[in-house]
Amino acid sequence: MTEEGEAAISPATRIDRVMTAIRGRIVDRSLMPGSRLPSVRAQSKAMGVSVSTVVEAYERLAAEGVIRSRPGSGFYVSGSAAPLALAEIAPRRERNVDPLWISRQSLEAEGDVLKPGCGWLPASWMFDTGIRRALRTLSRAENAELADYGTPLGHAGLRQILARRLAAHGVDVHTGQVLLTESGTQAIDLVCRLLLEPGDTVLVDDPCYFNFHALLKAHRAKAVGVHYTPSGPDLDAFTTALQLHKPRLYITNSAIHNPTGAVLSPVTAHRLLKLAEEADLLIVEDDIFADFEEAPAPRLSAFDGLSRVIQIGSFSKTLSAAIRCGYIAAREDWIDKLADLKIATSFGGARLAASILALALTDGSYRKHMETVRRRLGEARTTTATRLARLGIEPWLRPGAGMFLWCRLPGETDATELARRCLDDGVVLAPGNAFSLSQTARSFMRFNVAQSADERVFRSLEAALHH
Amino acid sequence: MTEEGEAAISPATRIDRVMTAIRGRIVDRSLMPGSRLPSVRAQSKAMGVSVSTVVEAYERLAAEGVIRSRPGSGFYVSGSAAPLALAEIAPRRERNVDPLWISRQSLEAEGDVLKPGCGWLPASWMFDTGIRRALRTLSRAENAELADYGTPLGHAGLRQILARRLAAHGVDVHTGQVLLTESGTQAIDLVCRLLLEPGDTVLVDDPCYFNFHALLKAHRAKAVGVHYTPSGPDLDAFTTALQLHKPRLYITNSAIHNPTGAVLSPVTAHRLLKLAEEADLLIVEDDIFADFEEAPAPRLSAFDGLSRVIQIGSFSKTLSAAIRCGYIAAREDWIDKLADLKIATSFGGARLAASILALALTDGSYRKHMETVRRRLGEARTTTATRLARLGIEPWLRPGAGMFLWCRLPGETDATELARRCLDDGVVLAPGNAFSLSQTARSFMRFNVAQSADERVFRSLEAALHH
Repeated sequence: MTEEGEAAISPATRIDRVMTAIRGRIVDRSLMPGSRLPSVRAQSKAMGVSVSTVVEAYERLAAEGVIRSRPGSGFYVSGSAAPLALAEIAPRRERNVDPLWISRQSLEAEGDVLKPGCGWLPASWMFDTGIRRALRTLSRAENAELADYGTPLGHAGLRQILARRLAAHGVDVHTGQVLLTESGTQAIDLVCRLLLEPGDTVLVDDPCYFNFHALLKAHRAKAVGVHYTPSGPDLDAFTTALQLHKPRLYITNSAIHNPTGAVLSPVTAHRLLKLAEEADLLIVEDDIFADFEEAPAPRLSAFDGLSRVIQIGSFSKTLSAAIRCGYIAAREDWIDKLADLKIATSFGGARLAASILALALTDGSYRKHMETVRRRLGEARTTTATRLARLGIEPWLRPGAGMFLWCRLPGETDATELARRCLDDGVVLAPGNAFSLSQTARSFMRFNVAQSADERVFRSLEAALHH
Repeated sequence: MTEEGEAAISPATRIDRVMTAIRGRIVDRSLMPGSRLPSVRAQSKAMGVSVSTVVEAYERLAAEGVIRSRPGSGFYVSGSAAPLALAEIAPRRERNVDPLWISRQSLEAEGDVLKPGCGWLPASWMFDTGIRRALRTLSRAENAELADYGTPLGHAGLRQILARRLAAHGVDVHTGQVLLTESGTQAIDLVCRLLLEPGDTVLVDDPCYFNFHALLKAHRAKAVGVHYTPSGPDLDAFTTALQLHKPRLYITNSAIHNPTGAVLSPVTAHRLLKLAEEADLLIVEDDIFADFEEAPAPRLSAFDGLSRVIQIGSFSKTLSAAIRCGYIAAREDWIDKLADLKIATSFGGARLAASILALALTDGSYRKHMETVRRRLGEARTTTATRLARLGIEPWLRPGAGMFLWCRLPGETDATELARRCLDDGVVLAPGNAFSLSQTARSFMRFNVAQSADERVFRSLEAALHH
């Protein structure tokens, strides 16, 4: 076939065809590692394509590492070959159900796996239109925006948006009090680096987000759980823990509590802060679910004016989890030290990620998007609760917002055992004790209503319950 | 003006005009915080634009946080207002020249500041065409690609590309031995988390990349410097340090050493590994400058077969520093533990960042781009050395590759003093002692030749030298 005869075929297809031919010859060993490829001219003749098509195909194969160029000598099949397409390591199902079990099972799940145990929305619920628009806009941005490190505090525009959002929740900050981080988790990690010494004690809610346990372990901190009630931590237990353990820090969720969906009451917030003041306790308030709120809940950071409370958050739950970016709002002198720690341990910030998020957040349709998400979550909470009730699984409370239902299993069902059984059906669950330091949530399970639309979740649960 | 009369003006301009009008009224206090905005219909009439234009403008202002919507009641000026456009905090020039001084001065530099002291290429030298293409491609990607968390080890395609690149340097790995991280710095940070206990001793080169000092401080590790020669660390000093300090870890640059531009010789590499084996020392090899190499240098990780050596790297120096992504190549059992630590301290990986980089790296033109960069660096090394020589500033060695010249200043010039003086001219320099644990590089300065094209760098140096 001549070049002319190929005119109807796109250049991209022609390049692909050459690449496929070469790859085929490497796979069937007619081109061995280290051997020289046909010259560009010879290959062009042999396949009836233009010289520039072959050049481009060779360049791309070289970029992939399949072949290598030796200047002045041509192209060669790469020498010591790493396997071309090794299968991904399978999730390790046999692993103990430690705080990292759910994270890894959920993050490693692929294809057909259902994830009512994970802590995020399905990709189809996220703000992809806004992200797509932002990507197109940024493909035309200035070089510096695409190639340079971010400033130590991070993208000024995004920090301004955050300062305004914080103000809307009654947290008065200026942009110098807002530091961007690589994720919400990294935000807490940096705060721990700043405030904790190995061996320090940290209070967490029992139950709480399981990754707090893993994070504190990484800091060699001693975690102490405080029983959580539908209006916040149990204040008697909190007072006792302060006296007994002299903790340095308390880490909690504001707005919508993970895993229970509970909301801190103003009176608990106020008393909690008084106790914290007396005991010189610092507080990290994780506000990651802020945009799911139907009605504004009290924020410890607002009551306290960011004097002993640090607020952190991110955009992974509502905008995109593929674009990592979090923030810390705190006293300015702490922000300065946190910026130093950020440089020391991760250097520049993710400038492009922040630009994408800033564009998406100022996109006029973000508010509407979130209204839709909240409405869908409300519906999903009702539907899921109804379906679970049929199996005798009852929520501990009926949350007014958010994606979680914290549920008691019927009788004395062991949630971890149930999770193991359902995993065989390709259903990843979040058993209660992963959230509980005292291991008193053996019969509890956290359900993500946005990830529970599929009938198979309930069929698997039913079968596993009657095992 | 009627809607018809506006037909020639783009919808975007009309929306902007409404936004500007409302912002103006908020700034001049004719709309006070908490007060209700004109109804959409009234505003549309008043400005002679369509109702949908006003709706879009209000939505955008709401997304910015300038106004708020109360369902069923209209839009209101946001209550407690954070200042709209606070100036960025200025770089703190008075700060002590500690390991973080250069980082912050370089990262915070804006506008007209020249940065021969920084450790990266100008944005205009980076692979922006590849990044732009990748952004356009990804704006059409599947939802999951744009919105979901990455897997624990990270983007499979990028890890495959890395495995092939490593193989090309003689480091035989499969993709299960490659973990993506949020940055090269975070890669070392995770390794330190895995391998170090507080109080452990770590060997570094003297001089070495200054951020190693800051990072080790964050880990409460004790850093010990080993004199660096043009062919690698001084092996006598290394042996003594092993005996005296029983270090757990040695962190070094392979390929092109920062700040000296030196290259490890095969014989030093071999002896070093023998010493490490005898002393049960682990090694982190930072291969961040790999793509600048003109001729392949020995890799400790290749000699050792990744048994006690861990290799880390990133894409910040050649592709983009705005897109954060690094990697760790190590023993598979360590990778597994490192993945747990990554989840605990930063959760999901930056999936979109990895997708952008994978696309850019397999873009046929990346190899050509790097050829151009290497050629330009070669020219810039010559030009810069010539210009510095005129000022009596001489390189310690003439590197065959890379962006750095490690130079001795004339006489007994104090580099830190010189750096302070040049900063007043808007020139950020990298004084030697920031790289030297023993503080024996008082008269040395690291120059980035790619950032030294501007005459003003040399004029400022000359003036400061004759101060």
